[in-house]
Amino acid sequence: MSIDPLGAAYLVAITAEAMTAALAAGRRRLDWFGVAVLGCVTALGGGSLRDVLLGHYPLSWVRRPEYLLLTVGAALATIALARAMPRLRTAFLVLDALGLAVFTIIGCRVALALGHGTTIVLVSGLVTGCAGGVLRDLLCGEVPLLLRRELYATVSLLAGGLYLLGRALGLQETALTLATMAAGLALRLLALHREWHVPTFAYGGGKDDAAP
Amino acid sequence: MSIDPLGAAYLVAITAEAMTAALAAGRRRLDWFGVAVLGCVTALGGGSLRDVLLGHYPLSWVRRPEYLLLTVGAALATIALARAMPRLRTAFLVLDALGLAVFTIIGCRVALALGHGTTIVLVSGLVTGCAGGVLRDLLCGEVPLLLRRELYATVSLLAGGLYLLGRALGLQETALTLATMAAGLALRLLALHREWHVPTFAYGGGKDDAAP
Amino acid sequence: MSIDPLGAAYLVAITAEAMTAALAAGRRRLDWFGVAVLGCVTALGGGSLRDVLLGHYPLSWVRRPEYLLLTVGAALATIALARAMPRLRTAFLVLDALGLAVFTIIGCRVALALGHGTTIVLVSGLVTGCAGGVLRDLLCGEVPLLLRRELYATVSLLAGGLYLLGRALGLQETALTLATMAAGLALRLLALHREWHVPTFAYGGGKDDAAP
Repeated sequence: MSIDPLGAAYLVAITAEAMTAALAAGRRRLDWFGVAVLGCVTALGGGSLRDVLLGHYPLSWVRRPEYLLLTVGAALATIALARAMPRLRTAFLVLDALGLAVFTIIGCRVALALGHGTTIVLVSGLVTGCAGGVLRDLLCGEVPLLLRRELYATVSLLAGGLYLLGRALGLQETALTLATMAAGLALRLLALHREWHVPTFAYGGGKDDAAP
Repeated sequence: MSIDPLGAAYLVAITAEAMTAALAAGRRRLDWFGVAVLGCVTALGGGSLRDVLLGHYPLSWVRRPEYLLLTVGAALATIALARAMPRLRTAFLVLDALGLAVFTIIGCRVALALGHGTTIVLVSGLVTGCAGGVLRDLLCGEVPLLLRRELYATVSLLAGGLYLLGRALGLQETALTLATMAAGLALRLLALHREWHVPTFAYGGGKDDAAP
Repeated sequence: MSIDPLGAAYLVAITAEAMTAALAAGRRRLDWFGVAVLGCVTALGGGSLRDVLLGHYPLSWVRRPEYLLLTVGAALATIALARAMPRLRTAFLVLDALGLAVFTIIGCRVALALGHGTTIVLVSGLVTGCAGGVLRDLLCGEVPLLLRRELYATVSLLAGGLYLLGRALGLQETALTLATMAAGLALRLLALHREWHVPTFAYGGGKDDAAP
């Protein structure tokens, strides 16, 4: 029997995402309701956007509302635990990196199950892995971090590519999932540690967003 | 025969929402087109987001485009009526509170009709009642008011809970709907009058939104 | 046989939209990944939002991922071509105007094929033509240009109306499409040249977005 290591990792990842989002809410002095919303949206928004774009209904948290309750609970618990959070910084960076890999693999699997080709499978992994943070930043009134710096989306694309390559080579699913999670986690932590960035593009011409 | 008091209240509510959204547009000096868009999105956006998340097609304004025309008309009429609006402040606060209760009940009913359980029914009411204002604030480039202060979402959750409780007790639908509308309206106005707020969460640690 | 002039024009238009979006990304110093995302979202976001609102699955770029690759490629190529872009300003204004007309006609056709009436057909054209730019501005943390000034949405509505009128008169489809494209293009360029604007609405009363 093939045991799926993704299930437990997914629960850990959405909990961690909801907690770091709660801190982002606290930095903007949102109220407790805002903390809960930002926690849910960040943890479950990527998968939800993927499902809406692919027409994949019902959304995961609609089918399993306990995911919603878990993220709301984690976000609200963070208010009580706020004082301890700075000491847990490293742990949460690792959990966030794990979440990126886990979400990416889940996104790839959903698209594969729907019969999509390589491009859409990679995009599905990317949206699942990254769109939650984009929605968080938009709700906070900021230009999404994802579009500005850091090797985050690239890690998602590489992890997705690795996963697809392993499938093409006929690797056993559980082993491949574990290997992809490990590789995604390592790559993300390496990018953080080495401060690898995607190059930026600075353009000074024109003033109008609808023209050069 | 059971007469549904929601139908008329819904039309009043989307008209009022479109008009207050038009004033929000006027505060940011949007053009007439922006006024119309902000009116539609605020009045119909909550229900639309609910329908997209639940895969409930067609959206209400697609099935009944007269809703769209009504909100556009109300938003544009507000430009002509702008001078009279400050005197109508109390009336509009009442209509907005009514709208919150009406939208919440409609959202609950839609989710119930789709066979969802308690959590999703309450979330459906909440999204229907509150997401229009969130979309309005996002289009205006601001952190949504809903996430920052005031007892707005909580009123929606309480009204939804009351409605579900009444159904579980087997109350007659029309009476229950009227009672829920009255309770939601009263609670929202009381919250406004007493300046009840959800507590805020202030967190000063770290600087990175993706980490503690 | 009826040749559809829209197909080629659509490819040119999404390429041009992705390139001007890439420059908007460069003005905000986004990284290369952000450039690619902003290019895709601007070029394909209008059609995607239309499809999600109308429940029209699969989305065009999911069915034809080469659209996605084309817009990503165009956005990234813009980084290399940035120095030449200011000299191409007029060309891109024309291409953007062409895109507005092309997207509008495509949006109208999709809604017609789904059996919708006049209002929804015009809204479908409007969303397809304009929502990409709104999403671009939201991701850039700005109040959408569309809501603030310029005759852009109005051109889309007029082009859509013209297209519907031509169909009602029984005009031949290819001729009607070409005529609508030409009229939309001319109207948009005229509006740019004469600096036609939609009037703005300025409201000074109240301070609360949820009340007058």
